[in-house]
Amino acid sequence: MSRWIQDGDNVDITNERKKGTFDTERMSAWIHGGPDVLKRRREILSFVKSIDGFKDPVPTEFMSREERILNNARKVVAMTDNTDQIDGSDFFGEGMYYQALTMGRDLHAMSLHYVMFIPTLQGQTDDEQLDEWLTKAISRAVVGTYAQTELGHGTNLSKLETTATYDSATEEFVLNSPTITAAKWWPGGLGKSSNYAVVVAQLYTKGECKGPHPFIVQLRDDETHMPLKGIRLGDIGPKLGINGNDNGFLLFDKVRIPRRALLMRYAKVKPDGTYVAPAHSKLGYGTMVFVRSIMIKDQSTQLAAAATIATRYASVRRQGEISPGKGEVQIIDYQTQQFRVFPQMARAFAFMAAATEIRDLYMTVTEQLTHGNTELLAELHVLSSGLKSIVSWDTAQGIEQCRLACGGHGYSQASGFPEIYGYAVGGCTYEGENLVMLLQVARFLMRAAEGVRKGSAKLADIGAYIGKTGPKTSRLTTHYHYTDADLVADLEHAARKQVFRAYDRLKKAQEHLSPEDAWNSVSVELAKASRWHVRVYLVKNFLNKVALAPQDLKFVLTDVARLYAYDIITSSIGAFLEDGYMSSNQMNEVKEGIYECLAKIRPNAVALVDSWDYDDKELKSVLGRRDGNVYPALLEWAQNSQLNRSDVLPSHTKYLGPMMKDARSKL
Amino acid sequence: MSRWIQDGDNVDITNERKKGTFDTERMSAWIHGGPDVLKRRREILSFVKSIDGFKDPVPTEFMSREERILNNARKVVAMTDNTDQIDGSDFFGEGMYYQALTMGRDLHAMSLHYVMFIPTLQGQTDDEQLDEWLTKAISRAVVGTYAQTELGHGTNLSKLETTATYDSATEEFVLNSPTITAAKWWPGGLGKSSNYAVVVAQLYTKGECKGPHPFIVQLRDDETHMPLKGIRLGDIGPKLGINGNDNGFLLFDKVRIPRRALLMRYAKVKPDGTYVAPAHSKLGYGTMVFVRSIMIKDQSTQLAAAATIATRYASVRRQGEISPGKGEVQIIDYQTQQFRVFPQMARAFAFMAAATEIRDLYMTVTEQLTHGNTELLAELHVLSSGLKSIVSWDTAQGIEQCRLACGGHGYSQASGFPEIYGYAVGGCTYEGENLVMLLQVARFLMRAAEGVRKGSAKLADIGAYIGKTGPKTSRLTTHYHYTDADLVADLEHAARKQVFRAYDRLKKAQEHLSPEDAWNSVSVELAKASRWHVRVYLVKNFLNKVALAPQDLKFVLTDVARLYAYDIITSSIGAFLEDGYMSSNQMNEVKEGIYECLAKIRPNAVALVDSWDYDDKELKSVLGRRDGNVYPALLEWAQNSQLNRSDVLPSHTKYLGPMMKDARSKL
Repeated sequence: MSRWIQDGDNVDITNERKKGTFDTERMSAWIHGGPDVLKRRREILSFVKSIDGFKDPVPTEFMSREERILNNARKVVAMTDNTDQIDGSDFFGEGMYYQALTMGRDLHAMSLHYVMFIPTLQGQTDDEQLDEWLTKAISRAVVGTYAQTELGHGTNLSKLETTATYDSATEEFVLNSPTITAAKWWPGGLGKSSNYAVVVAQLYTKGECKGPHPFIVQLRDDETHMPLKGIRLGDIGPKLGINGNDNGFLLFDKVRIPRRALLMRYAKVKPDGTYVAPAHSKLGYGTMVFVRSIMIKDQSTQLAAAATIATRYASVRRQGEISPGKGEVQIIDYQTQQFRVFPQMARAFAFMAAATEIRDLYMTVTEQLTHGNTELLAELHVLSSGLKSIVSWDTAQGIEQCRLACGGHGYSQASGFPEIYGYAVGGCTYEGENLVMLLQVARFLMRAAEGVRKGSAKLADIGAYIGKTGPKTSRLTTHYHYTDADLVADLEHAARKQVFRAYDRLKKAQEHLSPEDAWNSVSVELAKASRWHVRVYLVKNFLNKVALAPQDLKFVLTDVARLYAYDIITSSIGAFLEDGYMSSNQMNEVKEGIYECLAKIRPNAVALVDSWDYDDKELKSVLGRRDGNVYPALLEWAQNSQLNRSDVLPSHTKYLGPMMKDARSKL
Repeated sequence: MSRWIQDGDNVDITNERKKGTFDTERMSAWIHGGPDVLKRRREILSFVKSIDGFKDPVPTEFMSREERILNNARKVVAMTDNTDQIDGSDFFGEGMYYQALTMGRDLHAMSLHYVMFIPTLQGQTDDEQLDEWLTKAISRAVVGTYAQTELGHGTNLSKLETTATYDSATEEFVLNSPTITAAKWWPGGLGKSSNYAVVVAQLYTKGECKGPHPFIVQLRDDETHMPLKGIRLGDIGPKLGINGNDNGFLLFDKVRIPRRALLMRYAKVKPDGTYVAPAHSKLGYGTMVFVRSIMIKDQSTQLAAAATIATRYASVRRQGEISPGKGEVQIIDYQTQQFRVFPQMARAFAFMAAATEIRDLYMTVTEQLTHGNTELLAELHVLSSGLKSIVSWDTAQGIEQCRLACGGHGYSQASGFPEIYGYAVGGCTYEGENLVMLLQVARFLMRAAEGVRKGSAKLADIGAYIGKTGPKTSRLTTHYHYTDADLVADLEHAARKQVFRAYDRLKKAQEHLSPEDAWNSVSVELAKASRWHVRVYLVKNFLNKVALAPQDLKFVLTDVARLYAYDIITSSIGAFLEDGYMSSNQMNEVKEGIYECLAKIRPNAVALVDSWDYDDKELKSVLGRRDGNVYPALLEWAQNSQLNRSDVLPSHTKYLGPMMKDARSKL
């Protein structure tokens, strides 16, 4: 009997749980990395539930921005007071789970402190600086953020406008924002919460610009928390999501900071102003790859949450009759509903598998690097950039599909979807705008294609397909006999074809355009090649993981993995029909495969989403609640509305009431 | 010289306007229906700008829900005080424009009063009732809404749970909500603003249920505005959008209303409880078609707004270098940016053309009906349902593409996108959930297919292609020689093919399943057929309109229309390659056609969006402002943030400050 079934639950959802043909507890363990991890999750959950400091006085949807900021500050102090409850070295696992349970999807005053400020100190300070600043940061004596992006400058760092000009007379840098577009803009927690920041500015010394460098800068007075002289900063206003965070702006008016504010692990400026260039090129790929593997995990968690809500709700919502007289059916029985929701569930599984893999790959590469082995490094960096782009976009789209599949109630903030979407879709833009990422991937692919054409390609596993010769036509006969190897060969064919299509167009364009204009003129095709490259990886990785799963889980995971792969194929039919690689009949087989997967997943759908192990505290959705008792909970939730605090609002007393009274008097 | 150029504008945007190769004023007139309409728009705009009562004290993004409700109530009274300024009979034109300028995208306390309450009274009351209620409604002596949807019941009206049981002893109906799921849920303005509603309830008399009927019900006391006895109602809480509206819930505890509360134009209940069934079937298609044509206009307006913002911003945002040393380029020069934004612009043009056409068709059909001619009626009803579905979905997707194309700033509410998206995407769900709509369209298509197969089809113009025999292969040679007729033939081929694919699968499924289960088992294919049906119409209609445009506008409109059509083709490549209808080379020609369109639209992009004639007051976007001076305006906008009212927030004083102080004391 599923641990998810309890007395008093909605009967429909209980029946769904009884239908499941596998053990959800074993599936949860497989997803999260074993029974021990699962046990730790439940311990962390119990702890969080036991502490009053983590409770919200009302659901956060009903709070004003000011109230959310206050509530989040309260909770983040409680969260960081209790970090001894988790294994701090396991940010990917325990850390992210603990933060999700305590802080929800709103980020908080110290998000950047932990994700950017401290890692930058660790990576960029010399030993003396590290001693001073890391101690302060880790003890929470200061709250820091990372200020790089400017109002007029994002991706292209070389054009940042903030200047740090060295004055050897006083041995100080003068920080300045020469224009409005130089205003730092977006850093999390910068507006009101942080009193320190790592600021990236163009370093000038002896009249020369040495490019962007990081400086540690005090922004606010330790005691009064007022902005220091010459510093203008504040909140940048409401956003699509994460409105409990005070993303900020920051302008410097000739602010003097000591020479040693420059983080000097690599570049240095001597007291006389002599610039010492870094011995090694700046940051390695390591941190970026790590941050992006975190993002992929985070995004997959959001998509899984959306799929959980939509699946559970579809099992308790009854609407319309399929067979007259038999009563309204659960909407999960509509094929169109399955077609909307189940592929999102499948994506979430695929993305989680990728997140784990990329984390492990990161560790392998880090290990290889200590032995001077760089074989996988470039491909891994490329892959993580590409994954970030594909996963965040498919996640955002998938969340909206799940929301729309819940009809009107999906539009209410009670569903949780507006918050999940607002939070997740930001991932398409931050940490590298998605299209920029895809074009980076394309640089690698074009080099690979060039290598293949010249017979000099050295491609590690991830991109090896580019140099392979696949079958001339698909080996698919019926979807029952479609092997993993044949399926992968078909996807690789489509990817390879697009890579060379982009490559050939690029070569042709280079005949009459500058290299840069040629690149720009085929960039749509380049981005498409990158998408294929990443999707091939996602499918292969997922299939490999499933192949290794325990036998009692493998059968249902296979349905999920096939749905994921078939959905990719049927979303780009042209890529397979082109030049007769697949026939229409073969493509029809893939389509039939989808319907088969939907039907097979149907009885396991609720059990599958249960296996992700969301507690209601993490899910934060009236529609997705474990017990399925959605309607009374919606009514109760609505009572919290700010507008329900009184029966008659000032809008009536001041405006609508007098209007009606005046009209009545004239009737 | 474009009327859009003024002194002090951003130089980049002025240069774009000078590049335009057509007269924006003539284009505006073509879009909006002639120079007279344009003149009236500017008069209405001047009037709205001249009245203090229409000004917002701060941008509405910074208001709490309570403040928005109050602000909207103030403005809606001002708006309805001044309806003599517009031609009230022209809701589609002057009415919608006036409302957009005054109320923005938040709806208001009287939205449902005008869109549903009054039209229902007009359509459903007998003469005596009409006299009483319409007078009160139009004079604004009452504010009404329309309460049909329930917490547990949306699309399937026959299962509504609210009951109205006739008691002949007192000649009253007793309104009751027997369960929580019977709560009325969603009606706009129901929570706090309205004091009356048309309530749809199951009519019981003499022990028999006669199905859902409309009743007019007083909800709140005229003087005190308190809910009447037995009535429980309130706001349903925050949503993804339109949070300035008090969508509400409503529960009845055996509330007695007079017999004459039943709207008696069709069905009647006599004093003794005798039920008199309606002579004609209920509402005709007319109102629905009209409401949907309004929706299509409204949706296209939102998509056009998004495309305007993204296009203007892309012309002033500079980022990255294409050619080294030449400085950062306008991002509109990136092909990927054009590929993201221009197709959304093209869609907006196509949807506006459809909105006008469907409004005119509605008038034609209404006229035909007075002569007993029903030739076009069914197809028109089907088409308007389908258009509602396609247009609202493509609009929502398009808005998000435009938002993402603006990078980080698109995520800020300063961009306007979060509001535009939140408002527009609701259209995917209300007035008929999109998938339900598509399946209604499919019923028509399957009847048409059956007719064609049996040789008995009678198809009017809109669906005539289903019965045609097109060419066996595409006649496309190069995109330069691709005629409108050939292009349409290709789209019709794809649509027809999908219609018959769905039909054949349905027939096959019916061999071993009940008709209902068979329908459900092929519903994904059915929905796909419907999408093709509608898209064929959209392209044909747009091409026809462009063919009739004045010569000096036609050249650029042709680029736009071709982009729209090519984008549809290349988004479904498989449908054309299947069975060798198109070769890969032909498909490549279509792709080349897209790049050609992008390049040709590039110099006209800003002029094209200017032609939609958005004033900054309507657009409400810092990124999309006419003058292009985006950055100072962003900084100014942010100053309004609630969080910037003081330098030090309670979140610091109460939580973060003490935390840091404590840590410092221990260092």
